[in-house]
Amino acid sequence: MCKYKVGLIRVLTTEDEELLLSHGRLIMLKFPEVEVITKCIPNQYDGINCKELYDLAVPKIVEIAKSFEDVDMIIISCADDPGLEEVREVVTDIPVIGCGETGLGVSLMYGRKIGLLSITKSLPRAYQKIADQIILGKPDNVNSTRDLMIKEGRDNMLKVAKELKEKGAEVIALGCTGLVTIGIEEDIEKVTGLRVINPVLVAGMLASYESKR
Amino acid sequence: MCKYKVGLIRVLTTEDEELLLSHGRLIMLKFPEVEVITKCIPNQYDGINCKELYDLAVPKIVEIAKSFEDVDMIIISCADDPGLEEVREVVTDIPVIGCGETGLGVSLMYGRKIGLLSITKSLPRAYQKIADQIILGKPDNVNSTRDLMIKEGRDNMLKVAKELKEKGAEVIALGCTGLVTIGIEEDIEKVTGLRVINPVLVAGMLASYESKR
Repeated sequence: MCKYKVGLIRVLTTEDEELLLSHGRLIMLKFPEVEVITKCIPNQYDGINCKELYDLAVPKIVEIAKSFEDVDMIIISCADDPGLEEVREVVTDIPVIGCGETGLGVSLMYGRKIGLLSITKSLPRAYQKIADQIILGKPDNVNSTRDLMIKEGRDNMLKVAKELKEKGAEVIALGCTGLVTIGIEEDIEKVTGLRVINPVLVAGMLASYESKR
Repeated sequence: MCKYKVGLIRVLTTEDEELLLSHGRLIMLKFPEVEVITKCIPNQYDGINCKELYDLAVPKIVEIAKSFEDVDMIIISCADDPGLEEVREVVTDIPVIGCGETGLGVSLMYGRKIGLLSITKSLPRAYQKIADQIILGKPDNVNSTRDLMIKEGRDNMLKVAKELKEKGAEVIALGCTGLVTIGIEEDIEKVTGLRVINPVLVAGMLASYESKR
């Protein structure tokens, strides 16, 4: 059987194959009908955590999107949806999906007040549309996806997640796909008792949905 | 294998089993891992197309939600999400999903300008949050789900769908689940060339996603 093929763009440069392929593997594990081909942008080891790095990344993301051959969907695996419009302008024949839109879209289905875990103080672009429904949580000493990969960063994220619950969040959205990379979802559900929306898995779910049409 | 069980609420009274079960069957066809048990509200043959019928339906929907035994999720199969908050207040241990939120959430993943096909002139509640991104299309002579079931109503919907495309819609959302019942999705895709988001299938997709957790 021919699988539904997805081109997935990581917006973080890495030579670590485990790290590079983690999002794609997660999707393929849950949705075996989907095949994910992963590529990352060059020369951006800190990923995207500020306007400058965002602007730097967009043309690279467009180039990578154009480089995929024979895929049925493109996923930009970042909660800020960098380059989403720009890629849609050049790739017009298949769905182009961003992990900001996916996380937002499904979070909205689960609650009115969304607790958003983030590594920056500004809301991801998709979430700015419904800013009044967002409670943002950012640990003081976590400022990049690298900070998430050490125990202290992870522990601080869990602490902030608990605070989001106390502040009235009805569902938790991951405002950085680096949180997917470190597999913190279940731990957050344990400490908060809330449903955590994994934007990468939602993107995979969409690919699975498309594959059945 | 134990299937993931969904209680689905139709907000239209009918003794026609084909009509009653159409949404549930559609979900089970695409997602065989999901089992749908369907119930409809009593004494409301015109469904919901105005404030009075909405208010009349809410307590009935809550009662039906409470009557489901041993289900893993509840779906309110109406684009206006009637009773969504009220049901969530009494059913707190499983996800309660509304087909307004599902349609909106996935439409947002596919485009910035959403063409919304409707049987009323007011936006469904979920869509009111992003009113500036919505282009509403309602045929003059279609005012209830019954009107959709005759050829003229269907044809007028297709005409309005084409107009939405001309007005700049990038994706089409079904603003009434009666449009799902009449299976108009593929025809709209043919005449517009746009992706049509079926809110009932999206709800099914969520059930499938939950079943894999």
